[in-house]
Amino acid sequence: MARNHFKVSMEALVSLCKRRGFIFQGSEIYDGINGFWDYGPLGCELKRNIREAWWRDIVQRRENIVGLESAIIMHPKVWEASGHVSSFADPMVDCKACHKRFRADQLCEEQGLQLVKTAKGFELPAAAKCPACASPELIAPRSFNLMLKTFVGPVEEESALTYLRPETAQGIFVQYANILAVSRQKIPFGIAQIGKAFRNEINPRNFTFRSREFEQMELEFFIKPGTEAEWFVYWVKERLRWYETIGLSAVSLRQYEYRADELAHYASACVDIQYDFPFGFQELEGIAARGDFDLRQHQKFSGKSLEYFDPETGEKFVPHVVEPSAGVDRIALALLCEAYREEWVPGGDQAGEVLVAEPGKPAPAGYEARTVLGFAPWIAPIKVAVFPLLKNKPDLVQKGREVFALLQKRWNCFWDVAGAIGRRYRRQDEIGTPYAVTIDFQTLTDNTVTLRERDSMKQTRLTIAALPDHLAAALD
Amino acid sequence: MARNHFKVSMEALVSLCKRRGFIFQGSEIYDGINGFWDYGPLGCELKRNIREAWWRDIVQRRENIVGLESAIIMHPKVWEASGHVSSFADPMVDCKACHKRFRADQLCEEQGLQLVKTAKGFELPAAAKCPACASPELIAPRSFNLMLKTFVGPVEEESALTYLRPETAQGIFVQYANILAVSRQKIPFGIAQIGKAFRNEINPRNFTFRSREFEQMELEFFIKPGTEAEWFVYWVKERLRWYETIGLSAVSLRQYEYRADELAHYASACVDIQYDFPFGFQELEGIAARGDFDLRQHQKFSGKSLEYFDPETGEKFVPHVVEPSAGVDRIALALLCEAYREEWVPGGDQAGEVLVAEPGKPAPAGYEARTVLGFAPWIAPIKVAVFPLLKNKPDLVQKGREVFALLQKRWNCFWDVAGAIGRRYRRQDEIGTPYAVTIDFQTLTDNTVTLRERDSMKQTRLTIAALPDHLAAALD
Repeated sequence: MARNHFKVSMEALVSLCKRRGFIFQGSEIYDGINGFWDYGPLGCELKRNIREAWWRDIVQRRENIVGLESAIIMHPKVWEASGHVSSFADPMVDCKACHKRFRADQLCEEQGLQLVKTAKGFELPAAAKCPACASPELIAPRSFNLMLKTFVGPVEEESALTYLRPETAQGIFVQYANILAVSRQKIPFGIAQIGKAFRNEINPRNFTFRSREFEQMELEFFIKPGTEAEWFVYWVKERLRWYETIGLSAVSLRQYEYRADELAHYASACVDIQYDFPFGFQELEGIAARGDFDLRQHQKFSGKSLEYFDPETGEKFVPHVVEPSAGVDRIALALLCEAYREEWVPGGDQAGEVLVAEPGKPAPAGYEARTVLGFAPWIAPIKVAVFPLLKNKPDLVQKGREVFALLQKRWNCFWDVAGAIGRRYRRQDEIGTPYAVTIDFQTLTDNTVTLRERDSMKQTRLTIAALPDHLAAALD
Repeated sequence: MARNHFKVSMEALVSLCKRRGFIFQGSEIYDGINGFWDYGPLGCELKRNIREAWWRDIVQRRENIVGLESAIIMHPKVWEASGHVSSFADPMVDCKACHKRFRADQLCEEQGLQLVKTAKGFELPAAAKCPACASPELIAPRSFNLMLKTFVGPVEEESALTYLRPETAQGIFVQYANILAVSRQKIPFGIAQIGKAFRNEINPRNFTFRSREFEQMELEFFIKPGTEAEWFVYWVKERLRWYETIGLSAVSLRQYEYRADELAHYASACVDIQYDFPFGFQELEGIAARGDFDLRQHQKFSGKSLEYFDPETGEKFVPHVVEPSAGVDRIALALLCEAYREEWVPGGDQAGEVLVAEPGKPAPAGYEARTVLGFAPWIAPIKVAVFPLLKNKPDLVQKGREVFALLQKRWNCFWDVAGAIGRRYRRQDEIGTPYAVTIDFQTLTDNTVTLRERDSMKQTRLTIAALPDHLAAALD
């Protein structure tokens, strides 16, 4: 579906997410915990669908990619080897006046300034001010490591110190040799993983976009040195294609290509796939040609060879890697932003032109306002709503139950008997349910039902027997 | 499938799990980290299927249960309210001689002794010895809190101390009011969650059975006070039924009913569903009638009402809860134990009696040994293997590709062109693939293939067009 012209405000989106059970503040009952979010009944179904769509596209439909679920807590040496202990850090600034803390780079960016990189670290430009109290008295930026620490084992001493993984990727690198040995794969091949990661962000912000606990979907694709360029291009194209299949329109997506001076020293190329969020274009996924950096580091720190023997050419080499790394929470947020629209539709769902609502204004005469989440059907949390026309007619309710049981076997369905049909449609529109089936008196005589489609609001009459195949074409 | 008579040794199972890519030691390349496990390509598909089977049974097919994915890190007050900060602890014993640490209760149980409960805590019986060095000089048991700590926010001070959740359940309780408000549910209704939890076990053991990072599938079912007994019985029955549907036989399952003196003070009943592991009957799932303890505690600590208003009777009450709480890793381990068998089968897959292998003995004349994971088809990591008869006949390989593409759209499939067909069957038997399709020269003339079934080894000839429906009957 093409992007509509309605651009949602974060305020409206956050409100809908809470009101309809997509996303709640974490530990809200205790006034929340900054940077943590809970996904309610609809949000967790949305995330489940995103994960499933990724896994099917990346793992299931390809015979040269296999899955992994490694532990969140790994040996601390993993993070020494990966470089995270020494340099996975953000520059942090304290205000002398109000004692609040900020990320120096974000502070500068917001104030139209440039953070100064020095041999020792970073320096603030003279014009920088505290974003909270406007004091110019800021302590020089210090490096703040973003890994969350924990202590494993029954003794809380240095030897038991480890970290919550800040990315799932390293779990793949440290099991690379085991997986190669058991999976009958040859290079090029990939290992994919979905899982939680944690970063102690100094300033979590933009709703779920930058949080301290988040979920990644990462692929490490192992290749022969010298083939990075072609595989890099391949994966950028593949990933862009995937974003369109889940319902993000091409006009809302942008590629940001890293300049040579922005690349990590081991990387030969990096592209961010960005989405046009209400707070600007921001990263959904990074695709990086990481060379052999990670495997070489683990080879060095573990003392174990991670060389690959090419059975065809007899060569030995440490594989290079192309890494598409996506965030589930960011994709969920992008899908919500993309899907949200407010419309003025002809009253009583009559035929007629649908208008883009103007924020803050009432619908014109003969029209009513509706809020719609126009999710792609296969991504929508609930696929079909089933409505017996009247609650107090046992025949209708019983027939409705039969239809519900038939559809629920295959799809996530919603049963609703309360209120006028028009109101029930609106409730489903607002959570993005693509189809509603209404059971009325005619159903009792000829076994036909009304199938109503969310976007066009078109109603079609068809037999109950024909429903599953008809729906399957759009939903599966 | 009924339980076979082969009881696997943990040694054989651990070896298969590593050799074929089900389960690896976490951070193995750095000599491991005690109590953490990684699931390889087959293990993660097995876990995915377990989660999916549970979610479908608990959430999707019931209209009165909804899902939640709450954060692993919550506000520290959650764990004060729940009682975990003050009393989620095991008694820990140190050996004065070798300085090793043990769980006092496990130490006693292994030595046929009884740990003594006193007003202050626990005391070791005089006969207790160190399990490592046999010294009788043991330091009196001290309480050891099992929660893993971490520090959130850019200042490592007491106010930022929190924990990795030791159970997913509390995430449900603290969002109970939000979910009730948005989900149009009435009591009785349930909230279900799947996710990671962490416990700093003093002695992780029995492979993945007792680990420090694990995955739970928990349901909190909220009910009217006074209806605990009927709902408790209902959920025990429902959960036992589910275990049988995923392939655990009734004879391998046992219910352990808690005596009154074993129950937590707030619980009115608790049953463990146990599985007959190689190391004895042990808990897969606990089903507990927890009263209103958790909601009342959060009401008290948060100062927010968690009372339910019954629209039918006008009553107000704090709901009671029945909680079925299962472990994904334990279920995966039970499925592997249940499925594993070694057999002697007639040579060349000819018709004839299949014998249960006798450990350590060679197969009798005319027989060969095979290892099988007899997973229920819908739980097996890979559903269908596709084999072109010969690798070097392009016609066969191309036809094989067509069949593979047809099946891969719907199921997890495996492509294998290498080696004799018999050996390819054995490789699939060992990882539990229920079906193999072979493309031979006859396929090129009449579009029929051979479908071979794992357990019976029976081969059926059918057309490619008929394959999907035939397989769907067993797999979906």
